Amino acid sequence: MSTSNANLEKKRHSLAHLLASAVLEQFPDAQLGVGPVIEHGFYYDFKLPRPLTPEDLPKLEQRMKELAKLKLAFERNEKSFAEAKTFFESQNQPFKVELIGDIEKFGTTEAKTLQQLDAQLLPDNSNDGTVSLYKTGEFIDLCRGGHVENTSEIEPDSFKLDKISGAYWRGDQANDQLQRIYGLAFETKEELEAHVALQLELEKRDHRVVGPQLNMFLFHEYAPGIPFYQPNGVVVRNELEKFVREVSYGKGYSEVRLPQLFDSELFKTSGHWEHYKDDMFTLESEDRTFGLKPMNCPGHMLLYKQSLYSYKDLPLRFAEMTTLYRNELSGTLSGLTRVRAFGQDDCHIFVTPEQVTDEVASLLERTAKIYEVFGMKIEQVTIGTMPEKALGTKAEWQPATDALEAALKKAGWDYSLEEGDGAFYGPKIDMRIKDVLGRYWQLATIQLDFQMPQRFELEYVDSDGTRKTPIVIHRAILGSFERFMGILIEQYAGALPTWLSPVQVAIVPVSEKHTEFANEVLEKISQSLPNARVEVDSRSESMGKRIREASKMKTPYILVVGDKEIETNSVSVRGRNDADLGVQSIDDFISNLTSEINERK
Amino acid sequence: MSTSNANLEKKRHSLAHLLASAVLEQFPDAQLGVGPVIEHGFYYDFKLPRPLTPEDLPKLEQRMKELAKLKLAFERNEKSFAEAKTFFESQNQPFKVELIGDIEKFGTTEAKTLQQLDAQLLPDNSNDGTVSLYKTGEFIDLCRGGHVENTSEIEPDSFKLDKISGAYWRGDQANDQLQRIYGLAFETKEELEAHVALQLELEKRDHRVVGPQLNMFLFHEYAPGIPFYQPNGVVVRNELEKFVREVSYGKGYSEVRLPQLFDSELFKTSGHWEHYKDDMFTLESEDRTFGLKPMNCPGHMLLYKQSLYSYKDLPLRFAEMTTLYRNELSGTLSGLTRVRAFGQDDCHIFVTPEQVTDEVASLLERTAKIYEVFGMKIEQVTIGTMPEKALGTKAEWQPATDALEAALKKAGWDYSLEEGDGAFYGPKIDMRIKDVLGRYWQLATIQLDFQMPQRFELEYVDSDGTRKTPIVIHRAILGSFERFMGILIEQYAGALPTWLSPVQVAIVPVSEKHTEFANEVLEKISQSLPNARVEVDSRSESMGKRIREASKMKTPYILVVGDKEIETNSVSVRGRNDADLGVQSIDDFISNLTSEINERK
Repeated sequence: MSTSNANLEKKRHSLAHLLASAVLEQFPDAQLGVGPVIEHGFYYDFKLPRPLTPEDLPKLEQRMKELAKLKLAFERNEKSFAEAKTFFESQNQPFKVELIGDIEKFGTTEAKTLQQLDAQLLPDNSNDGTVSLYKTGEFIDLCRGGHVENTSEIEPDSFKLDKISGAYWRGDQANDQLQRIYGLAFETKEELEAHVALQLELEKRDHRVVGPQLNMFLFHEYAPGIPFYQPNGVVVRNELEKFVREVSYGKGYSEVRLPQLFDSELFKTSGHWEHYKDDMFTLESEDRTFGLKPMNCPGHMLLYKQSLYSYKDLPLRFAEMTTLYRNELSGTLSGLTRVRAFGQDDCHIFVTPEQVTDEVASLLERTAKIYEVFGMKIEQVTIGTMPEKALGTKAEWQPATDALEAALKKAGWDYSLEEGDGAFYGPKIDMRIKDVLGRYWQLATIQLDFQMPQRFELEYVDSDGTRKTPIVIHRAILGSFERFMGILIEQYAGALPTWLSPVQVAIVPVSEKHTEFANEVLEKISQSLPNARVEVDSRSESMGKRIREASKMKTPYILVVGDKEIETNSVSVRGRNDADLGVQSIDDFISNLTSEINERK
Repeated sequence: MSTSNANLEKKRHSLAHLLASAVLEQFPDAQLGVGPVIEHGFYYDFKLPRPLTPEDLPKLEQRMKELAKLKLAFERNEKSFAEAKTFFESQNQPFKVELIGDIEKFGTTEAKTLQQLDAQLLPDNSNDGTVSLYKTGEFIDLCRGGHVENTSEIEPDSFKLDKISGAYWRGDQANDQLQRIYGLAFETKEELEAHVALQLELEKRDHRVVGPQLNMFLFHEYAPGIPFYQPNGVVVRNELEKFVREVSYGKGYSEVRLPQLFDSELFKTSGHWEHYKDDMFTLESEDRTFGLKPMNCPGHMLLYKQSLYSYKDLPLRFAEMTTLYRNELSGTLSGLTRVRAFGQDDCHIFVTPEQVTDEVASLLERTAKIYEVFGMKIEQVTIGTMPEKALGTKAEWQPATDALEAALKKAGWDYSLEEGDGAFYGPKIDMRIKDVLGRYWQLATIQLDFQMPQRFELEYVDSDGTRKTPIVIHRAILGSFERFMGILIEQYAGALPTWLSPVQVAIVPVSEKHTEFANEVLEKISQSLPNARVEVDSRSESMGKRIREASKMKTPYILVVGDKEIETNSVSVRGRNDADLGVQSIDDFISNLTSEINERK
């Protein structure tokens, strides 16, 4: 969530009530699902007698504004499970009745997609035999609380209804199909407008549109959520992998390539079979059950176990970029952002407890250096400490958490503690990255893990000859290549830095008689930069058309060569956005290009 | 098969009869499976009352030699199905009865692993209601024929029984477990001895042993048939992939990365679902059936179909190295040679009919160039023509076959026609490659395909504006990376050429005080060759031990540096097999190393 502003959360939550209220006025038979706060606003799900159209939104929005002006309060009312169910049955609200049933049975709602539900909208998990209802004007909802004092706190122009989409009750295709109304809400009208303007800009940059236009990737219904990398996308991916090998990994790392298909026994040992099986693709062969790996860690533990290591071998760093598979619900898939198959700049570092601080400090430095290359900044750093449900003892957690703090201090970084936000197997450092569009991303993560090494009974021989259990650091810096490519395409609106561009130089001879010279220029560039991606476009199309096409494909440099250039052994250089970079000698052009590519600009 | 010598085949086949005869004498209750000719010899499968031990082989071999000396003939006898079954029932030979039943029912034996059975051992598929039996001495076998005139043609010292292994009847784990006896057989004693000597040498070089010793790869029961590439193996694999991108593909190729998991609908269109499903891993997700791709072609057809291409866009070359999966029977898996997951230097080239000859000619040239790098030679080239069961008409096949012949002529290569040896979808060129150990490999293949483009309804716009169907050339030059790595490890006994070696230079300082200079040498090499793989071993182990370890890991160059080297700014160079390459100036060493690596030596 891009805001931790509790007040804004309350406004958004309150607006969800107003939306439901407005919908019920217009559709008295509407059945209500849930209406959580989300990034930038809120939504609410409804079962309605007819499909909504975009024209419905202004009317509902108008009614919400009117309701807001009525200074409505949120009156809390506690009911027993039975009373609450009877009430919602009388209102013909079967989804609410179902939720109350789950709270009664499980002490919580066993929603399949609980993460999608805002905890605020659900009653306390206090198990005191009651649930809370909130009344706003005429409208009563099952709700845990967390509203504005009264609705006049909401500035009428600070929110708007945004869009409609389909949704299944509890995200399950087997259930009723509902209609979801999304709303945007901010503190002020200005913030809303800025957000809408940014969204418009982002729509133009949407990687799902720009990527296929640039022959980077496409999707096909035969492989939902798995990108087909087209030739230009493979160039970018290969460059990123090379970058990862050189910079994100570097000399001290051992790249491995393990199977993508493992016997389920592996995942039983790692714990994934118990906790993660539903998100895995599984298959049978010769009466054995296999799973496509959703993460690299189990394989890395198994590989470590095949040799006996001494403390002198540590830190031992297994790095891997092979494809991971997750059986995500098809309804949740989206472009490169939410996929079923992806690679990562993943690594598992096996260390002694004494090595944690230095290793993490060096990872922090590396992370900052990496994001600088892409014009991004690390804006916020948190340490997640021992959560309520954690494996291991406080005595194990404290020194590990201290080691992370020591690493951050050593690196001289500001950070805050997020109490209870660690993974169940150990504390972690999360980094929020800000891109040049001002968007925030959770990409880099450094996690300590005491548990998996124990489950796999991993050992190293310490200096005193005793066998000890190593600690594992899980680390990814760019995160998923797929998601990172999506972010890059949007950040740069497809005009990737020269070193990443699929074609770096397009040479356009003015007419046929200049083609030979164009090829000579290409040859000269290739001699200095054997891996440079240079093309001569000598098709019998007009010069204007050829320049436009190269420009449309976001080629960083277009060299036009005609009589004048041949005479002076030079090239006329056009940069992006039709920038005229003037006539340059071939050597000067090559020398500039070389430093640009070598410095990854 | 490494021989096409029909006479030798007859001897091997005759020896299988003698083996069965000798086994029946010793074990009158033995039940006989099949006994085909294989590369280097023959085998026969038996169900026996006790497990065989290696000590049984000399006795059986001795008896075979005695039988051979008896100048036994092979008497043919034709029987109706019923007669033949009654006969084998009376002999308590249920497997033979089952085979006859299959021949009667299907006109052939529907053996699950028919490719493992030698057609010679099975009767003609003539459907005349009879099968042939052959009598040799007292022994009668179900057999199609193809023997020596009499057994005295077999030189007694030209064959030997080699080994015992388990096998399932028809290769199916659900069936009876049999014992298989393998025999070696050649024309002469000398050839047999040469073969045995080579085998002994190969055992020392066995990639399944050498690979793990060199930290290249290992296997684990959790992923049968799927290698775990360890760090050194990844270095080799990455270098091979780089080589493929630069040389096997080169400028005109478009690398793509398509999903590895596709809806079964794709494979229904391509025909794999009908013909290849049993060899595929399949799984379910959200009520859809998916398959892990066993080949790249279906995906490439689908990708082609996403755009409209003009004749000007052809040849269009989609190259892909992502992992392919085949659900091979676990019993058939072996090292890197027979795996369940592998990559290829695979490519599908979409061409107009007019482009076939030039494209293929250039592929031939490329292939020869590539094998030269690995010291291998193309020894034999064949064109496989239209088989009996083929898709398409003779009118389609002839010009395609002509185009392949024209390409071979253009390249100036000798070749022979193998009538009927084409793939069912088109004619092909196969190349037998000879490695430096004198072993032959079928690695490179160039296949024409008219069928899959039709099944996918692919089109291009021709110069006259009409829509036409492209021809597809399937090509792989190295073939599977896994198998090729296995071959390389054995050919070089692990001592890979410098450009492929995981560590190229190990620097060993004589004592601690020379470590600084060792690091300077490393730094100097890295400045000239940023991607060179150089390590300083400054562990507190004896110099001798550090040199031995680097040598055991087949490091091509070990540089020893001490007082003398520091004084003269030089390095003492040791090559492989303890070769003393003398004291060299650092610059000379770097300059030699640079050309060696750049020339892929």
